[in-house]
Amino acid sequence: MSTQNTEKSYYVGIDLGGSKILAGLFDTELKLLGTNKIRTKPERGFDGVCSRIARCVKELMDDADLSCENAIGLGIGTPGSIAPNGNVIFSGNLDWKDKPLKKKLEDLLKLPVVVENDCNAATLGIYHKELHAQSPNMVGIFLGTGIGAGLIFNHKLYRGSNHIAGEIGHTTMDIHGDKCNCGSIGCFELLSSRGAIFRQVNKAIQRGEPTLLSEMGDGKLEDLRSRDLLKAINRGDKCVDRIVDEAAFCAGIAVSNTVNLLDPDIVVLGGGVIEALGDRMMPIIEKTAYKHAFPGTVFKVIATELGDNAGITGAAALAQNKDI
Amino acid sequence: MSTQNTEKSYYVGIDLGGSKILAGLFDTELKLLGTNKIRTKPERGFDGVCSRIARCVKELMDDADLSCENAIGLGIGTPGSIAPNGNVIFSGNLDWKDKPLKKKLEDLLKLPVVVENDCNAATLGIYHKELHAQSPNMVGIFLGTGIGAGLIFNHKLYRGSNHIAGEIGHTTMDIHGDKCNCGSIGCFELLSSRGAIFRQVNKAIQRGEPTLLSEMGDGKLEDLRSRDLLKAINRGDKCVDRIVDEAAFCAGIAVSNTVNLLDPDIVVLGGGVIEALGDRMMPIIEKTAYKHAFPGTVFKVIATELGDNAGITGAAALAQNKDI
Repeated sequence: MSTQNTEKSYYVGIDLGGSKILAGLFDTELKLLGTNKIRTKPERGFDGVCSRIARCVKELMDDADLSCENAIGLGIGTPGSIAPNGNVIFSGNLDWKDKPLKKKLEDLLKLPVVVENDCNAATLGIYHKELHAQSPNMVGIFLGTGIGAGLIFNHKLYRGSNHIAGEIGHTTMDIHGDKCNCGSIGCFELLSSRGAIFRQVNKAIQRGEPTLLSEMGDGKLEDLRSRDLLKAINRGDKCVDRIVDEAAFCAGIAVSNTVNLLDPDIVVLGGGVIEALGDRMMPIIEKTAYKHAFPGTVFKVIATELGDNAGITGAAALAQNKDI
Repeated sequence: MSTQNTEKSYYVGIDLGGSKILAGLFDTELKLLGTNKIRTKPERGFDGVCSRIARCVKELMDDADLSCENAIGLGIGTPGSIAPNGNVIFSGNLDWKDKPLKKKLEDLLKLPVVVENDCNAATLGIYHKELHAQSPNMVGIFLGTGIGAGLIFNHKLYRGSNHIAGEIGHTTMDIHGDKCNCGSIGCFELLSSRGAIFRQVNKAIQRGEPTLLSEMGDGKLEDLRSRDLLKAINRGDKCVDRIVDEAAFCAGIAVSNTVNLLDPDIVVLGGGVIEALGDRMMPIIEKTAYKHAFPGTVFKVIATELGDNAGITGAAALAQNKDI
């Protein structure tokens, strides 16, 4: 016969993405006790996705022999811009506009909910769990399908005047470059995101350059993931090797740009591209950043050790009011 | 017979540049009562320049029938990075390294002195005098011989971890561009500074393009100033017109980059290039910035009305402890 655990001493952190919902169970010391992952299915719309988030959380608690009543609070990181009332103002990834995410999840789960931008949440996770909130000024840069950043100034998350700060993926680094979907030109996201890398591979294939990727994924590049790039490099694929090196160089320049403008103590890189290709890319990113940084700047560049768990960790930290 | 004014109710603000020292006398409401300007003569070294600053201040006070004893304090904006103790850590313009500017001026003038980076001082001047400190987040961008910025986050000047934040002139906007003296490549300063504009004019002359500037300044372009560019444009010089337009376009992209990363309420442009060519450049800068800014950002772009007096105003504001 099992005894019901009535202790209210846990936090839940959620990382909501366009393809997956990742939920983490944390203790009050931000130690990760368990995770649950299900697909987002954004095509089901706002209510459908919220039901799936609730299911993901309930399964997470149940797997740990707990229920939602054992949680003190829940934090969620989601793509897009977030209003102070917890509404998602706009999310291109999820095709949401002014959706009451906080209210809906509080109704479904009977828990206090904090909503934050996904890059901001991941930055807070790294800041509190990995850096122990010691550096006053930190920038987190996340390379994935797209590219975003989180900014910590004077020990606090900086959100900007429209809660939209951190769109480093949409800063122009190639003033003669291609038009970006965002309306600008030559954006960083067109140079170093997973999408940018695969676009370059595609161009190389069309030029007739040999690459192992043309045979992988049944020839459909859009089905490939960042780790397929690593596999190709490990098998001696010179074409992919060169393209990933170029993306890393551009990311290194993005780091030196950030350092020259914002003079942080530390820049931390994360996201799916770094998770898969960090061993390959980080030496180039570091070398490029240090070489191009302004004389007099002193800073560190690292890849996060939290990997995919940065987002859920930060979301749990937010549920703990770590940003106040 | 004159009566000695013994009222101690004035502030002095200094803008120290590579070519000139500008001093301003302010009342407690930051109203400008008078100015004095003399040449810097940086070749006389640190002690020589400090003596000239002291002379400039004493003349300023005397012209107003006052003496240094009537001043509550003095602020000074100077190129380079400044330590919290008021030492100039490094200034390329003045060829100074670790110079005790605060201490030296306090000894010479018997006044409390506050030292700040020149772009930071100008930003504070605009923020307090022109914007009345109402926008939480503001960026000042100054186009002159070089390009620098000042950052206000949550109503306070942000200096960065090494007191060097704001080097927007050394952020890469053309990843395939020329090498910059700073060690990086394709920097904003190579695109929109006065130096960059004159370099482009020089290249055009060498290509054989007709421009009125080849006849001005006895053919020595380095002797020309920003207002000579305006004169040439007003006389119908198509070559200068095009080059200034391109510089303005790049400055507009720098503004949208700043907005996308930092999401401020307002970006204010200043510096000698804007002072001389603002009427010509600002419409292009505004249009480009609004067009390339991330969807959802709401911000204003303006040229400062303080012109050359932004620096002395901010320096006086610092003397008033406006940043605390």
